[in-house]
Amino acid sequence: MQDVLRAGLAGLGTVGASVVRLIARHENDLAVRCGRPMRVAAVSARSRDKDRGIDISSMAWFDDPVALATSDDIDVFVELIGGDSGPAEDAVRAALKAGKHVVTANKALLAKHGVELARLAEENGASLNFEAAVAGGIPIVKVMRESLAGNAINRVYGILNGTCNYILTQMEQEQRSFAECLAEAQRLGYAEADPTFDIEGNDTAHKLAILTSLAFGTEIDDGSIYIEGISSITLADIEAADELGYRIKLLGVAQRTETGIEQRVHPTMVPKSSAIARIDGVLNAIAVDADFVGEIVLVGPGAGGEATASSVVGDMADLGRGLSVPVLGRPAGELEPYRRARMRLHEGGYYIRLEVYDRPGAFARIATRMAEKQISLESIVQRRDEAPNGAGKPTPVILITYETTEAAIREAMEQIADENVIAAAPQVIRIEKMV
Amino acid sequence: MQDVLRAGLAGLGTVGASVVRLIARHENDLAVRCGRPMRVAAVSARSRDKDRGIDISSMAWFDDPVALATSDDIDVFVELIGGDSGPAEDAVRAALKAGKHVVTANKALLAKHGVELARLAEENGASLNFEAAVAGGIPIVKVMRESLAGNAINRVYGILNGTCNYILTQMEQEQRSFAECLAEAQRLGYAEADPTFDIEGNDTAHKLAILTSLAFGTEIDDGSIYIEGISSITLADIEAADELGYRIKLLGVAQRTETGIEQRVHPTMVPKSSAIARIDGVLNAIAVDADFVGEIVLVGPGAGGEATASSVVGDMADLGRGLSVPVLGRPAGELEPYRRARMRLHEGGYYIRLEVYDRPGAFARIATRMAEKQISLESIVQRRDEAPNGAGKPTPVILITYETTEAAIREAMEQIADENVIAAAPQVIRIEKMV
Repeated sequence: MQDVLRAGLAGLGTVGASVVRLIARHENDLAVRCGRPMRVAAVSARSRDKDRGIDISSMAWFDDPVALATSDDIDVFVELIGGDSGPAEDAVRAALKAGKHVVTANKALLAKHGVELARLAEENGASLNFEAAVAGGIPIVKVMRESLAGNAINRVYGILNGTCNYILTQMEQEQRSFAECLAEAQRLGYAEADPTFDIEGNDTAHKLAILTSLAFGTEIDDGSIYIEGISSITLADIEAADELGYRIKLLGVAQRTETGIEQRVHPTMVPKSSAIARIDGVLNAIAVDADFVGEIVLVGPGAGGEATASSVVGDMADLGRGLSVPVLGRPAGELEPYRRARMRLHEGGYYIRLEVYDRPGAFARIATRMAEKQISLESIVQRRDEAPNGAGKPTPVILITYETTEAAIREAMEQIADENVIAAAPQVIRIEKMV
Repeated sequence: MQDVLRAGLAGLGTVGASVVRLIARHENDLAVRCGRPMRVAAVSARSRDKDRGIDISSMAWFDDPVALATSDDIDVFVELIGGDSGPAEDAVRAALKAGKHVVTANKALLAKHGVELARLAEENGASLNFEAAVAGGIPIVKVMRESLAGNAINRVYGILNGTCNYILTQMEQEQRSFAECLAEAQRLGYAEADPTFDIEGNDTAHKLAILTSLAFGTEIDDGSIYIEGISSITLADIEAADELGYRIKLLGVAQRTETGIEQRVHPTMVPKSSAIARIDGVLNAIAVDADFVGEIVLVGPGAGGEATASSVVGDMADLGRGLSVPVLGRPAGELEPYRRARMRLHEGGYYIRLEVYDRPGAFARIATRMAEKQISLESIVQRRDEAPNGAGKPTPVILITYETTEAAIREAMEQIADENVIAAAPQVIRIEKMV
C-alpha cells in the first residue's frame, strides 16, 4: 500500500465539516478503493474553537490558509473557503505553484480564474479537481471531462440553482406569489438573507460558464453570459404555462450555433413531458445533448454539506488513485477562445404575456406588429377575468410564437409598447426545445 | 505528445462500426483530450468483406480474435463480440494475460467471469473497462466506481432493459396487451425474434449483478438473483396501477438489508411522482441511494450503436490518458463474498390482484387469511364490470398492503388459493419505496 494521502482542508463550514465526517466514517473503504489511506492532516478556518461537531484535535491547525496550502505536510489542498478572490484565490494559487494538487468547490473562483489556474496546475504538474463546484453532489464535471470524451456536445442545459427551483416549484404547487415563496425559502434556509445572487441568476451563470468550457473546449468566459433572473415571474405566467403544456424553470443553457456559442441564463418554458420539467424543489438536473450518446440527464442534490462532500471526496479519491486529467478536459493551451453567439441572433419559440387595453383594434395592432417581423403565432389565449372588465381595464393575452429570433421579438415588443395598447411591459419567456 | 494508442477491435456489428466511425470523426479532439492520438490499428470480425459503411482498409485484419488480442501491434483490445464464453472470453483472457488493456461492452461475460477477469487484469498490470456493459450510453460504471467513492451505497435500482420499458410504456399509453406490444417492439427492432432473454429479466439481471458488485464491494454473483419477467403483466394491472398512483416498471434492485444484499429483478410498482416512473420507451435510468450524496439519478439511452460507442470510446480515452482504476472499484482480493439476503425476508408493500368468485363470504375469507399473516391493507379496490356479473363470474379485487414480508405474502396467497374463492393465480407485484 502506498503512502497516506494527506489533505489540508481550508474552510470548516457545512461542507468542510461534512468532508471531515465522511473521511472519518469511510476511512477503511476509502483506503481499499484508493490503495492508500486518506487523512485530513491539517485544517484552517476562521475560528479554531467553534463547535462543529467534528474532532479536529489530531489535525494540525493553520491560521493562514496560504501557509496550509504550501505546507510540506500535505499532498492535496482542499479549498472550501469560497469567493473569487482573497484567501481562497491566494491559497489555491500558492498550492498549485507549490505543486500540490487542489480540490475545490469554488464555482466563483473557477468561473473567474479557471483557465489561468488550469495553466498554473499544468506548469507545476498538479491536478485541479472541482466536481463540487457545479451542481453539488451530481458528478457532472467528471462525466463531461471524462465519460463523454468521445462526443461532440451540441448543448448542455440544466437547473443549476436549487433556490430558484424551490421558489418556482412552490409558486406552482401552492399558488403563491414569488415574494411569498422567496420568504418561505429564506425561512427554511434555502435562500440567503440577500437572495440577489441566486434569484437574479448569477450563481447559475458561474456554473454555466464552467460547463460551457467543459462542453465545447473553450476558454471560460463568465462575462459573456446573458442573464435574466426569476423575480419577474408571476403566478399568471405559471398558470398560463401550465395550461399551455409547459413549466417554468430557471435554466442555464450553453449551445453551439452557427455564429458561436450561446450562454444564457433565463426563466424558460420547458415542455411538461421533458425530464427537466419534472425536477421539483431544491434538486438540480443537467442534460447533455451530444452527437454519439444522444441525450443524457443527471439529477441529484445541487447543494447541501453532505452531498457536496461526496463530490469533494470523490475528487480526493481520484487523486489518491493517481488519476490525473487536464483541468478543463484538455490542456489549457488547447482551449479555444470563446466565441459568443449574440443573444439577438438566438432562435427559438417565445411565450409573451401582454396586458392589453380592452379597446377596439388593440389586438389587431399587436398582431400586425408581430406579422411585420415575420413572427408566426402557434397559439393565442385571451384570458378574461370571470367578472366583467371595467372600461379600459386591461385583459391578459398570451401568445406562443413559432421559432423566430430574439431580435424580431425585441423589435416587435418595442413597437407594440409604442402603440399605447398595453398597460405594462410585455412579459417575454423563451421556450426551450427538448427531447 | 505520447505515442499513438493502438486499439484492436473484435466485432464489427452495430457498436463496433459506430466505434470506428466515432474515432474517425473525432480523431483530433480525442488526441487533444488524451494527449495522444487514438487509432483502430486492427480489427477482427466474422466476415471481412461485409459492407458496414466504414473504411477498414487501413486496419490490419485478423481472422482470429485471440490472435488480435495478443498482437504486438495493439495496446488496447476492444471486445465487442458478445457472449459469456467462446471467442469473447478466450480473447479477453488472452489480452489480459498479455498485459493488454481491455475495453468491453459484454455484460454476460462480466456477470459470469467478472471477478476472475479482474484478478487476471491486476496480475498482469492491465485495465479492464466496461462502461458500455451496463446501460449503454449512461456512464453509471464510472460514476459508481469513481465519483461515488466517498459513499456507502444503500440501494441501486433502475430500468436496465429498454425492450421491457418500451413494452410497458406502450401497454400503458396505447391500452394494448403485452402480446401486441411485444409484437410491435419486434417489428421496430427493439425486441429480438426470441425475446425471452429480455422479457424474462435475464438481461436486466446481468447488468444488476455488475452494479451490485460496484455498489457494495462484493464479488459478482449472478446466480443469486431473484428474477421475474414482465410477461404476466396485464392491462388490468397497468390500469389499476394508474388508479392507485403507480406505474409498473421492470426494475433491477440491489439493496443492503440486515441479513445480506438483496438482488432482485421484477415488475415493480413505482410511485408516479418518482423520477423512475417517468422514464418512457427505450430509455434506461439508474438511481443510486448513498449515505452522503443522497439520491442521484442518471437517465439516457441504454442501447444503440452510437450511444454504446460513446461509452466504449470514453473507456478508451481513459486508457489513452493513463487512468487506471481497480476493475470493480477495489482490488479483486478486497471484494467481499456476496451474502445473499433471502427473498422470503424481503420487506415492502405489495400490490395483489385477485379474481374473486362472487359468492357470499369470499372476501371475508381472503381478509382473514391476510390478517392471520399480520398483513395490513392500505387500500382495497373492488372493480365490478359495468355489465352485471353472471352468477359465479369472478370480480377483480385489488389489494395494496402496508409493509410486510415476502414470506407472509407467499403463505397468505397459498392459503387463499386453497380456499376455492379465486378463479386464477393471484397477481403479486412488489411496491418499491422511492424518494
